[in-house]
Amino acid sequence: MWIYLNDRFVKEEEAQVSVFDHGFLYGDGVYETIRSYGEKIFMRDQHLARLRRSADAIGVTIPKRDWPSLLHESMERNGVGNDGTDAYIRITISRGTGDIGLDPALCPTPTVVIMTKPLKPPPPERYRTGVSLIVAHTRRNLSSALDPQIKATNFLNNIQAKREAIAAGAFDSVLLNWEGHLTECTVSNLFFVQSGRLCTPALSCGILDGITRGIILSLAREAGIPVNEGRFTAEALMAAEECFLSNTTMEVMPATQLNGQPIGHGMPGSLTGRLHQIFVAQRRKFLES
Amino acid sequence: MWIYLNDRFVKEEEAQVSVFDHGFLYGDGVYETIRSYGEKIFMRDQHLARLRRSADAIGVTIPKRDWPSLLHESMERNGVGNDGTDAYIRITISRGTGDIGLDPALCPTPTVVIMTKPLKPPPPERYRTGVSLIVAHTRRNLSSALDPQIKATNFLNNIQAKREAIAAGAFDSVLLNWEGHLTECTVSNLFFVQSGRLCTPALSCGILDGITRGIILSLAREAGIPVNEGRFTAEALMAAEECFLSNTTMEVMPATQLNGQPIGHGMPGSLTGRLHQIFVAQRRKFLES
Repeated sequence: MWIYLNDRFVKEEEAQVSVFDHGFLYGDGVYETIRSYGEKIFMRDQHLARLRRSADAIGVTIPKRDWPSLLHESMERNGVGNDGTDAYIRITISRGTGDIGLDPALCPTPTVVIMTKPLKPPPPERYRTGVSLIVAHTRRNLSSALDPQIKATNFLNNIQAKREAIAAGAFDSVLLNWEGHLTECTVSNLFFVQSGRLCTPALSCGILDGITRGIILSLAREAGIPVNEGRFTAEALMAAEECFLSNTTMEVMPATQLNGQPIGHGMPGSLTGRLHQIFVAQRRKFLES
Repeated sequence: MWIYLNDRFVKEEEAQVSVFDHGFLYGDGVYETIRSYGEKIFMRDQHLARLRRSADAIGVTIPKRDWPSLLHESMERNGVGNDGTDAYIRITISRGTGDIGLDPALCPTPTVVIMTKPLKPPPPERYRTGVSLIVAHTRRNLSSALDPQIKATNFLNNIQAKREAIAAGAFDSVLLNWEGHLTECTVSNLFFVQSGRLCTPALSCGILDGITRGIILSLAREAGIPVNEGRFTAEALMAAEECFLSNTTMEVMPATQLNGQPIGHGMPGSLTGRLHQIFVAQRRKFLES
């Protein structure tokens, strides 16, 4: 794998940062994960804009680069995208290398990393059976402690919740916020269906404004599906007719179990399937344009 | 500077980790900062025990090493401790290198780093004038999202609060918890004096059980000083007679301003001075034993 590191592409084994990189010492950095469909990078400019907003929020200036060209070069060098394969791209920007201490002034130059590899979509079977969730004991980060709109490399909150899911033999965890309302999963947004309405936690519950989430919400509204962005408890999810997760890699993934109990009939729901179809049609149209 | 990296000492410029180190990608790691007085490492075993507790809490197994010897070798190689200088030692253990993803199983081997340099104590003048604090808008991490007893390399919460302090021209920020109670500063515990009582936020407010904090509390109790570990608001701190911060490096540092207003008479308080004297006497006795 070729990795873009700071100012050039290097081989994976040479892609190293100092132990004084504040990304390593403090998790002081931001990131984006982006995907392509074939050679076309999906929502590229939206992801780059969000990366900039994340960096702004922690006071890091993103180094000037021709970012679109770099992403495409990164795909080319790694031989993904051109033969019908899809690319998984992760951009990481850390505060950079500097002496020990919290003052950002210790790090004059941010570290830039671009990793690109073939995207492994979830196996088709997983879409047919749906995934299992638990409600984690780990609560979601407090918004006023770490703004969830910052896609930061401070991921221990999510990792602790993921560890709970693994220990329980589940696919992932749903995290509740400080007041016991549903938020999101460790790397995806959460949707469920209640009396035919599409429900999803409001941004004010302390969640990332996911790009896929936003697309799904606007497609649902266009299709005349009633939408409810609100505050919900785990009990509401337990009583839901359907449930699914959304992110860049999975698109729309049915979730059919919660804490070992079936959600609805324990099978992917019809509105879930319909929304995934609408999503796929829409992104195809988008990519052809 | 010689850095211990995984299994050997390397020069600083060779002390590099992969960009796939989950410490860099996710802030997935723990650390300790330890100091020496001359060649004697202070509270060494307590720090090593806390490092182990932190690692346990995130499911990282600390690699088997002769840790005491390594710390002393690290001091020797860097020429600190033996000529009356004090050492600043930071141990970092990250999840290690692995593919992108939150599953700890992706990283078979933790990364071990020991950095040792001469400790720069705060200038004596700072102890004479005291430091200035602000109450940050950034709230302290929610305990149930990320246990404050884990000294983790997820430091963006503290960094955001530190950035606020820097922007305000203050030395540091005091963080409030989710319900508006005082917690701690970005790298130190907080104490203040109210009607002659030594007050400090209780652990249940969501703070680190600081080693220096623990020593101060037991010394205060031994000295017959009334102690109140409780829940306090910023107003209580504003109305305090004295205030100080504690950590391994600063020991007892007077704080004399809050949000631009003097705390008490705006000068280091007498109980603060007395506690620092008791602390210094105690650690001298401890180090001579």
